[in-house]
Amino acid sequence: MFYDAVEVASRDELAALQTEGLRRTVATCLASPFYRRRLGALGVGPEDFNSPLDIRKLPFTTKDDLRVGYPDGFLCQPREDFIRLHVSSGTTGAPTAVFYTANDVAAWANLVARCMHAVGLRRGDVFQNMSGYGLFTGGLGIHYGAERLGCLTVPAGAGNSKRQLKLLRDFKVDGVHIIPSYALHFGQFLRQEGVDPADLGWRFALIGAEPHTERTRRRIEEVLGLKAFNSYGLTEMNGPGVAFECAAQAGMHVWEDAYLAEIVDPQTGAPLPDGETGELVMTTLGRDGMPLLRYRTRDLTRFIPGECACGRTHRRLDRITGRTDDMIIIKGCNIFPMQIEQVLMAMPEVANNYLIELYQENDMDQIRVKVEVRDEVFAAAAPTLAGLHKRMVARLRDEVLVTPAVELVRAGSIPAAEGKAVRVEDHRLLEPA
Amino acid sequence: MFYDAVEVASRDELAALQTEGLRRTVATCLASPFYRRRLGALGVGPEDFNSPLDIRKLPFTTKDDLRVGYPDGFLCQPREDFIRLHVSSGTTGAPTAVFYTANDVAAWANLVARCMHAVGLRRGDVFQNMSGYGLFTGGLGIHYGAERLGCLTVPAGAGNSKRQLKLLRDFKVDGVHIIPSYALHFGQFLRQEGVDPADLGWRFALIGAEPHTERTRRRIEEVLGLKAFNSYGLTEMNGPGVAFECAAQAGMHVWEDAYLAEIVDPQTGAPLPDGETGELVMTTLGRDGMPLLRYRTRDLTRFIPGECACGRTHRRLDRITGRTDDMIIIKGCNIFPMQIEQVLMAMPEVANNYLIELYQENDMDQIRVKVEVRDEVFAAAAPTLAGLHKRMVARLRDEVLVTPAVELVRAGSIPAAEGKAVRVEDHRLLEPA
Ligand SMILES: [Zn+2]
Ligand SMILES: [Zn+2]
Repeated sequence: MFYDAVEVASRDELAALQTEGLRRTVATCLASPFYRRRLGALGVGPEDFNSPLDIRKLPFTTKDDLRVGYPDGFLCQPREDFIRLHVSSGTTGAPTAVFYTANDVAAWANLVARCMHAVGLRRGDVFQNMSGYGLFTGGLGIHYGAERLGCLTVPAGAGNSKRQLKLLRDFKVDGVHIIPSYALHFGQFLRQEGVDPADLGWRFALIGAEPHTERTRRRIEEVLGLKAFNSYGLTEMNGPGVAFECAAQAGMHVWEDAYLAEIVDPQTGAPLPDGETGELVMTTLGRDGMPLLRYRTRDLTRFIPGECACGRTHRRLDRITGRTDDMIIIKGCNIFPMQIEQVLMAMPEVANNYLIELYQENDMDQIRVKVEVRDEVFAAAAPTLAGLHKRMVARLRDEVLVTPAVELVRAGSIPAAEGKAVRVEDHRLLEPA
Repeated sequence: MFYDAVEVASRDELAALQTEGLRRTVATCLASPFYRRRLGALGVGPEDFNSPLDIRKLPFTTKDDLRVGYPDGFLCQPREDFIRLHVSSGTTGAPTAVFYTANDVAAWANLVARCMHAVGLRRGDVFQNMSGYGLFTGGLGIHYGAERLGCLTVPAGAGNSKRQLKLLRDFKVDGVHIIPSYALHFGQFLRQEGVDPADLGWRFALIGAEPHTERTRRRIEEVLGLKAFNSYGLTEMNGPGVAFECAAQAGMHVWEDAYLAEIVDPQTGAPLPDGETGELVMTTLGRDGMPLLRYRTRDLTRFIPGECACGRTHRRLDRITGRTDDMIIIKGCNIFPMQIEQVLMAMPEVANNYLIELYQENDMDQIRVKVEVRDEVFAAAAPTLAGLHKRMVARLRDEVLVTPAVELVRAGSIPAAEGKAVRVEDHRLLEPA
C-alpha cells in the first residue's frame, strides 16, 4: 500500500530519523569549503544536534551563497564521486549548480518513485514524460523515478502535441508528467482534434514546476479527463520529489526522512507556528555530495495542520502562494503574479495563457496584462468584449489595488513556454526611463 | 587499461560467448508472438546453434517486420518488466518501437560506458551531452553510459550555443557528445565569439547519429580543437554503443559479446567475405526484453580486416558509406521522403510535384522542400500564400521532427522526371567543403 514503510513512521520515529540525518549532514558539510568556514566560525559540530529543533542553531543558506560558491564551492565528496550536475538558470544572472553523486541520483529516483506511487501509479503502468529533459530537473528527475518505480517510461520530451497524442494512444498511457501551462494547451489541442479525453484511458497527471491555483488544477483535470496531482521541488533540493500530493489531493506530503522543512517569517527569519504562511526553508538529510543546511527557498507556503486521510505521517505543505522575490511593486502596492492568475482563472471567458508585462510610462512603473480569451468570446461583438474588458480591469484592481492595462488577445497567441512558464516580462530596464 | 576484460578475449572465447548468447537469445525469442510463429514454422530451437555461423539457419528480421509487430509484438518478457521504450520515427508512416527491461537499460549503459572508456574518458572526467534527449536514443543512451562510467555528466541537451559554451568553461569539460552537423556549426560559433578552442581544454568528442566522411571528422577535430570519435548505433540495437572507435581511430569495434554482426549482399542476402562492403545485419546476444535475430540495418559497411593497434579483439566496422534505402538523416532525425510526400499529398493546395533538396549552410546539413501549388492558389493574395506556407512548415516539422525550408513554386516548374521520379537532390557533397 505504501512504497516505503517510512511513509507511515510515527512522528517520534521521524524525529529520531531527522536528528540522526541532521547530525550526519552537519558532519558531511564540514568537508565543503563553504560550510567548513561557516560552521567553524560558529563553533558547532554534529554533537550539538539532539532534536530536529536544534537546526535553529544554524544560519540560513541563501541563493546568493550558492552563487558565490558557484560552480563547486559546496562539494563534500571527492570530485570523481560526482556523476551529474544540474544548473538552475539561464544565460543571464549568476547561475547556481547542484552536483549529485551516484548515491544522490539513486536516492532522488527513490523519492520520486515514492511520490508517483503515492499518486496511484504502479509497476507495469505506462508513463509518458511530457516535460523537457536536459538541465531542467523535471525531465531526468521524473524519468529516473518512473523507471525506478518500474513504469514503462516513454521519454516523449516537451512539445509536438500531435506526436504526444499518438504515443498516448499507441502505448495506452496511464499517467503523464506535464507542466501546467502545457497541460492547458494540450487540452485545447485535444478539443481541436475532436478527441474525447475519456477515450485516452489515462488516469494521472503529475503537474509541477509552475505554481498554480487550485482552480487551474481543476481546469486541467477537466480538459484532460484525469486526476492531476500537484508536486513541489526545486533544483537546490534535487528537483521534483521533495513534496507530492497523495490520492487525497489535500496538500503535498514533504518527505521528512529526506528533508527537514521549516516555515519562517521572510523578514525576520523567525520560525512560524504550524498553519501560518511564511517562507519555506529546507535542509537535506540524506544527500552525500552537496548537502544544504537551512536553504531559503523563497517560496511562500504553510504547513497544513492535522492528519491526512491517506495515513501518511509526513506533514503536508499547502500549495505555493507566491515567492518572497517575485513580488512586483507598482505604485507602492505589492503584487504577486499568483494574485492575478487567481482573478483570471476565475473568469470563464479566459483561455489558457496570460502574460504580465511591466514597463515604464511617464517615468512611472506600469503593469499590463495580456489575457487570452476563448475563441467564441474573441469572436463576439465589440460591446461584449468591451464589457468583459471592463469587468476584468475592475476585478484585477480590486485584487491588486492598482489599475492594470488589460489587453484581450486571441487564444494561442501568447507563446506557450517550454519548461517553466515565464508569466512576467519586465521591460522596465530596457525601455528609456 | 580496458573497461571490461572481454574486450581482449581471444577469438575462440568470443566465438564461445557468441554461441552461448545465440542459444540463449533463440530460447528467449520463443516467448514473443512474432518469433514463436517464425521459429516454429522453421522448426529450429536453441539446440541447433553450435557456432556463430549457425546463425545462417535463421531468416532475416526486417524493418517491415517491426512495423507489422508495432507496438509490442516482439516482447519476450511480461509487460510489467519493461521500464523504457524508444520510438524511431514520426507521426505518419509506420513507426517502430523498442522496449527495454531494467536489465536491458543497465546492459546498454554498460556498453556505452565501455565505448567512452575506449575513447579515453575516465571516471571523474567531466562530460557534456550536447545532443537532444527524449525519444532520440542518443540522448538518454549516452547519458546513462556517462553516469555508469562515473563521469560528471552535464545534461546540456541540444542547441543554445551560448549556454553550451558557458557550461564547457564553467565546469572544465573534458569530453562531449555532439552530432556532426552541430559540431561544425558550434565550431563556427566559437570562431564568431573569438574563442580559441584550445583554451577550452576539452579533449574528446563522440560523434555519431549522422553518417559522415573522414574529411568531416578531421574538420570537426580542427574547428573544435579535440579528437573526434565515430560511433555507430541504431535504435533497434538499443541506440548508441553498438560499435565505437578506440583511440586508434581506425574503424569501430563492434562489441561481439553483445552483438553478432554479419555483412551480407543486400540483393541476395548471402554472406560476404571479410573486407567486402555489404549490408550490416545484427543480432542481439544479451537482450532480455526484445531480442532481434538477424536484423537488416540497411546500413552499408564492411569489416576492416586485420588487427587493431589497441589490442581489442572485437572486429572493426568501417564507417557507414550509404544505405540500402532512401532514408535521409538530418540533425539526427531519420527522414524518409515518403513521409514528406504523405504530408504534401494530404494538402489540397498542392499540385503534382515536389523536390527535396539537401544542402549545407553554416556547416550544417539542411533540408529544403520545393512544392508546386495549384495555379489558383499560386495566384492568391500574399496572406493566403503565407498562411499555407506556415501550415506546411508546421505539418512537415511535426512529421519529420526537423524544420525544413519550404518554397512554394508554380505548378509545372519542377521538371517532371522520366521513369522513377528523383525526389531528392543531395547537394551536400557538391558544395565546397
Ligand atoms: Zn495523504
Ligand atoms: Zn582499437
